[in-house]
Amino acid sequence: MKNLVSMKDLSVEQIMAILKQAQLFQEGASSQLEQNYTMANMFFEPSTRTKMSFEMAERKLNLNVLPFEAGFSSTLKGETLYDTVKVLESIGIDALVIRHEQNNYFESLIGKVKPAIINGGDGTGNHPTQSLLDIYTIWQEFGTLENIVISIVGDIGHSRVARSNADALTRLGAKVHFVCPPKWQGEFEANNDFDEVIDASDVIMMLRVQHERHDGVSTFSKAEYHNAFGLTEEREKRMKDNAIIMHPGPFNRDVEIASELIECDRSRIFKQMENGVYIRMAIIEMILKGRE
Amino acid sequence: MKNLVSMKDLSVEQIMAILKQAQLFQEGASSQLEQNYTMANMFFEPSTRTKMSFEMAERKLNLNVLPFEAGFSSTLKGETLYDTVKVLESIGIDALVIRHEQNNYFESLIGKVKPAIINGGDGTGNHPTQSLLDIYTIWQEFGTLENIVISIVGDIGHSRVARSNADALTRLGAKVHFVCPPKWQGEFEANNDFDEVIDASDVIMMLRVQHERHDGVSTFSKAEYHNAFGLTEEREKRMKDNAIIMHPGPFNRDVEIASELIECDRSRIFKQMENGVYIRMAIIEMILKGRE
Amino acid sequence: MKNLVSMKDLSVEQIMAILKQAQLFQEGASSQLEQNYTMANMFFEPSTRTKMSFEMAERKLNLNVLPFEAGFSSTLKGETLYDTVKVLESIGIDALVIRHEQNNYFESLIGKVKPAIINGGDGTGNHPTQSLLDIYTIWQEFGTLENIVISIVGDIGHSRVARSNADALTRLGAKVHFVCPPKWQGEFEANNDFDEVIDASDVIMMLRVQHERHDGVSTFSKAEYHNAFGLTEEREKRMKDNAIIMHPGPFNRDVEIASELIECDRSRIFKQMENGVYIRMAIIEMILKGRE
Repeated sequence: MKNLVSMKDLSVEQIMAILKQAQLFQEGASSQLEQNYTMANMFFEPSTRTKMSFEMAERKLNLNVLPFEAGFSSTLKGETLYDTVKVLESIGIDALVIRHEQNNYFESLIGKVKPAIINGGDGTGNHPTQSLLDIYTIWQEFGTLENIVISIVGDIGHSRVARSNADALTRLGAKVHFVCPPKWQGEFEANNDFDEVIDASDVIMMLRVQHERHDGVSTFSKAEYHNAFGLTEEREKRMKDNAIIMHPGPFNRDVEIASELIECDRSRIFKQMENGVYIRMAIIEMILKGRE
Repeated sequence: MKNLVSMKDLSVEQIMAILKQAQLFQEGASSQLEQNYTMANMFFEPSTRTKMSFEMAERKLNLNVLPFEAGFSSTLKGETLYDTVKVLESIGIDALVIRHEQNNYFESLIGKVKPAIINGGDGTGNHPTQSLLDIYTIWQEFGTLENIVISIVGDIGHSRVARSNADALTRLGAKVHFVCPPKWQGEFEANNDFDEVIDASDVIMMLRVQHERHDGVSTFSKAEYHNAFGLTEEREKRMKDNAIIMHPGPFNRDVEIASELIECDRSRIFKQMENGVYIRMAIIEMILKGRE
Repeated sequence: MKNLVSMKDLSVEQIMAILKQAQLFQEGASSQLEQNYTMANMFFEPSTRTKMSFEMAERKLNLNVLPFEAGFSSTLKGETLYDTVKVLESIGIDALVIRHEQNNYFESLIGKVKPAIINGGDGTGNHPTQSLLDIYTIWQEFGTLENIVISIVGDIGHSRVARSNADALTRLGAKVHFVCPPKWQGEFEANNDFDEVIDASDVIMMLRVQHERHDGVSTFSKAEYHNAFGLTEEREKRMKDNAIIMHPGPFNRDVEIASELIECDRSRIFKQMENGVYIRMAIIEMILKGRE
């Protein structure tokens, strides 16, 4: 594994190796890296959880992390992403985490630059570290992905997470259902009635309503969306005994999920964020080891 | 001490313990922390001295510091402070320094989140680390706070420093006078004639005129304010032999204080900033030790 | 060497000492600094390569680097540069790298503050670390500067690099030609026909067209500029066998230089950036050692 830009790059075996290494890190294992590596996190879109999670993972691996301020860089002078990355290559950076608003931004980089590229999210495309931490959280809960029924509910068409998760979860043996309003399903097949899937689901994965990606013309009021596609306390009561609630965050309280459910017993929302640190440690270590 | 949000939380004994530990650090003592801790500094308002002072203190304590860019975080997507702090808790942060424009922002956090909260300033409310470094500077100068006469001059109503200092200085035995124009005294009793207090003061603590907190309708020109409530060279000459000048910074030269006095013999303005690093080391160490 | 603000401060002997120390670092030597030092990088103008290069150099020297966000500092409250630097002095910073839009900003600092000042670029004035990495790159290539013919092509009047390089290169024995449109030559003598100098040049150093420094009234279209003063593939073919191409970056592809030439065999553009890290290590180490 030289880079990680899409879940499509990973075989089932590679995914399982990442989960197992993440588990070792979570149990207290320390980094096996033998050299000093330097990384930078290039976030061209605002982020708290993904950026901070990578920053923490990098420090737990004892890496050197150079600060990169996207809003104060030469991209303001019109420099292309390729040219900026070549600069960072020249000064000796080994790996870059990049979040960028443009889908497939990484096509201008992979195979052309020396630093490893770890995709922290590309537009409405991929978000593989989020997918892996989701998979890890489910695996941790049920001990397997085989035959686990997962309903992904919300803004499917605009969601990086849905796209990244769909294929990988299926390859791992899970049964994935999408649930969303007809206008939002994009290229996916989806169920338009949330209530039909609730009692059969082991995992209900709520997606964020991406206000900032819609064009200002909202089809629903917040209350209407909450009633039709939100995880309400009433719906939570109908979930299977051991079923769990997930959400990649940041969440809109009382839009896609009732505020009271964020920290309820079934919720793995903050567990997902905790798990993200170990998943990212596993990914970074594997990629850097591949260079030794 | 689990958090530090207000001077009201601290007993006289705790204040003295902080001063003594700060002195040890200033004399060269090193951190007694036995674990690796990770912190982040969440500054939602611009700051140089407080933020840089915390950053230095954290590094002198060998802590791990994750960068948090408030202007590029998920708060831009509408995430609440509580939810952002829960994210940082989940990824493993032990303590947070927070500056926020909203008074008492910490009420949504204390007792509800695991990371220790150190208040770096809340709106017009509290700024306890500034108060403690002020107290430390006076104690260092006079060996006691008992019967020290302190005149706090300026924008009392809008000042975090005045509010935080008032009560604590009095509890430590100092005599505190406020001096300001009638319109600015807020809830405080104040003397409206600066010249009346000068020759009796051991400490003259000038406050910054908070242009950015006033509503655009200025009661005074800069020159008028300087004449009536500024520390001029003429006024400095009338100060007691051993009296000192303080200012929390950033100062407006020739508004609240004559430019020539900033670095005069009586001035402890830059000494305050130096002292701030050691006070913050003492506070952070005490809080983190309380968790071991 | 207590500070480095301009190439004029450096004797030929000092320049050679810096080049030789940079070479040692590039060959793997490690820092000889005996104390712990803390630095900060104050960039008041956007920068990727200079800022990241300093950040990397500082970490390779095992220095403590405090983050300074110019866009979120007390300068927003009107604090002067001198006062901000005095704050950083007070909290214990040993050296500062400063980039500022104002020419000679450092005159308010040198001799008045304790931290060493390393100029990372002042307006249209100086950029000594860029000059030194340029000189190092040429020296590395030809083993000497003596009698090397260097053509500096482009926006001479607005270029920090041209001003910083001109005198130093000449003192080191190089022959420097400036080439630019008549309107852009500022105080310099310049050749207005690029084609006249190509075949005699050992080094062709292209400068960035500084769109952001011009007043919106462009004399040339991009294509016109490229034809008249750009390094085209046709011009590259007429260069001397061992001649090299340099550019300080960020470059405008197909304006001052053909996109195809950026990574051609003659190009030392990314080599310059690599070399910059070692030059900056040498400078910082010399300055900090001068304080021990």
